[in-house]
Amino acid sequence: MINQLVKEIQKKNAPIVVGLDPMLSYVPEHIQKKAFAEYGETLEGAAEAIWQFNKGIVDATWDLIPAVKPQVAMYEQFGVPGLLAFKKTVDYCKSKGLVVIGDIKRGDIGSTSGAYATGHLGQVTVGTKKYYGFDEDFVTVNPYLGSDGVKPFVDVCKEEKKGIFVLVKTSNPSSGEFQDQLVEGRPLYELVGEKVAAWGEEVMGDSYSYVGAVVGATYPKMGEILRKIMPKAYILVPGYGAQGGKAEDLKPYFNKDGLGAIVNSSRGIICAYKQETYARFGAEQYAEASRQAVIDMREDINSAIQG
Amino acid sequence: MINQLVKEIQKKNAPIVVGLDPMLSYVPEHIQKKAFAEYGETLEGAAEAIWQFNKGIVDATWDLIPAVKPQVAMYEQFGVPGLLAFKKTVDYCKSKGLVVIGDIKRGDIGSTSGAYATGHLGQVTVGTKKYYGFDEDFVTVNPYLGSDGVKPFVDVCKEEKKGIFVLVKTSNPSSGEFQDQLVEGRPLYELVGEKVAAWGEEVMGDSYSYVGAVVGATYPKMGEILRKIMPKAYILVPGYGAQGGKAEDLKPYFNKDGLGAIVNSSRGIICAYKQETYARFGAEQYAEASRQAVIDMREDINSAIQG
Repeated sequence: MINQLVKEIQKKNAPIVVGLDPMLSYVPEHIQKKAFAEYGETLEGAAEAIWQFNKGIVDATWDLIPAVKPQVAMYEQFGVPGLLAFKKTVDYCKSKGLVVIGDIKRGDIGSTSGAYATGHLGQVTVGTKKYYGFDEDFVTVNPYLGSDGVKPFVDVCKEEKKGIFVLVKTSNPSSGEFQDQLVEGRPLYELVGEKVAAWGEEVMGDSYSYVGAVVGATYPKMGEILRKIMPKAYILVPGYGAQGGKAEDLKPYFNKDGLGAIVNSSRGIICAYKQETYARFGAEQYAEASRQAVIDMREDINSAIQG
Repeated sequence: MINQLVKEIQKKNAPIVVGLDPMLSYVPEHIQKKAFAEYGETLEGAAEAIWQFNKGIVDATWDLIPAVKPQVAMYEQFGVPGLLAFKKTVDYCKSKGLVVIGDIKRGDIGSTSGAYATGHLGQVTVGTKKYYGFDEDFVTVNPYLGSDGVKPFVDVCKEEKKGIFVLVKTSNPSSGEFQDQLVEGRPLYELVGEKVAAWGEEVMGDSYSYVGAVVGATYPKMGEILRKIMPKAYILVPGYGAQGGKAEDLKPYFNKDGLGAIVNSSRGIICAYKQETYARFGAEQYAEASRQAVIDMREDINSAIQG
């Protein structure tokens, strides 16, 4: 799957991923109204609204982008109906040829991490049959529990030829509280980065490992160091746009081959129609606004990393 | 909710929680057969089997225990049907008066953590209405992203009078890889413990905070130190039994009031019928075996902490 991700990034000349993180407040009124007319103001109605919202964005952008990153929390807030919308979104994106990165940030111990890996990447055995649960292509993983918590994901990745992105340095302001603490003079995130490189060694694709890393766009100097510590790890970069990360800061996250990183934007794309720059599209044409925002983001990032 | 948890622990004289972490292989054949006869060897069939299995255990033990801790990964592995079984389990346990600790180990940044908190503890707004998604009483939270990731949970706890247990020191063998790293001469988990105490200050119940901690039974010396660092945090203690933690090691996790900790057992209770000690019950009477295991665990722990 890492090979496919790299191929799609090259083909579309777009090291970018669209974060499908819908809050109900992002969904234009006409979509909410239609969903509520059919299902009422219920969890099912909310789930229908976010699914239709996603579908519009995917239909308007799939030919431009290699991948999407649905954030499961945004679906989980609507309980089981929300998770049905998550599953529908995953399936639909895959049917459009998109690589799907489930932003689930799971992590537990041993057999419990194994169960998460099975549910999101692998197949569960029921009697004589096997089924995929959510069937994403990649997921994000929290490393706080150590190798016990990550290895079960790596095992499933090996079997399914899928991948993970391990949280190394996150994009939020307080990420430093624990991640930046100095251990023998070096920040903890470097230790985590070294582990990511080690976990990834046994599951190599053609040029990058199945085990990637999350490093926020808001900390470019740390990105530069981590790029060197994990040369074979694809870096998923959140924090561009709405969170304050700028294109010119992104160069250190890439390798000399122009590969090695994929930059996420969520609100910047899916809420484009609410920004002044794209206000001309209006709420009815929200998906077209997202398409234009994707084109602009691709240009912004390509010119920065190629410059 | 922390007040209710303490009250139930005192009333039942049982500082224990039963981990409802069903693997399909734990479910006796007669239950699997019946579920597959009705739903086929499908995800729905598996979900029905684990739900019926849980129901049997809850019916046989609810009068002895204050709380249950369903591990969501075990349900998530069966996709959306599995999460429906999770929700059914949560609702049923609450109808029996049990405090429900959702072992979800979520953690993200800002609004995303907020969405998890809303989905599992709070209410989401849909048009003019509000709904609970999963509606647990407590959830477990991963602190790797720092205060940004935890505060949104604390905010929802305040509103709903519910609670969280933050991962401080987990019970697994490799938990030390990052959690034990020395920061200015002190292990990282102590820093996390200090943050737990700080986060909990603003959300105090009668004698304990809404913000508790997870500290594994397998590291009693660390438990002793953490008990002092977080005097007002209830400690959820995994790792007793199947993972090797012993009752005599648990005393340091408790305060002098005999309160302050609640010990989890999952496999030790729900798979009791597979152990030699309880083999006499047989698979048909698996729930009675679980009841006896609860009685034995309560005795084991009470004699150790009161001794």
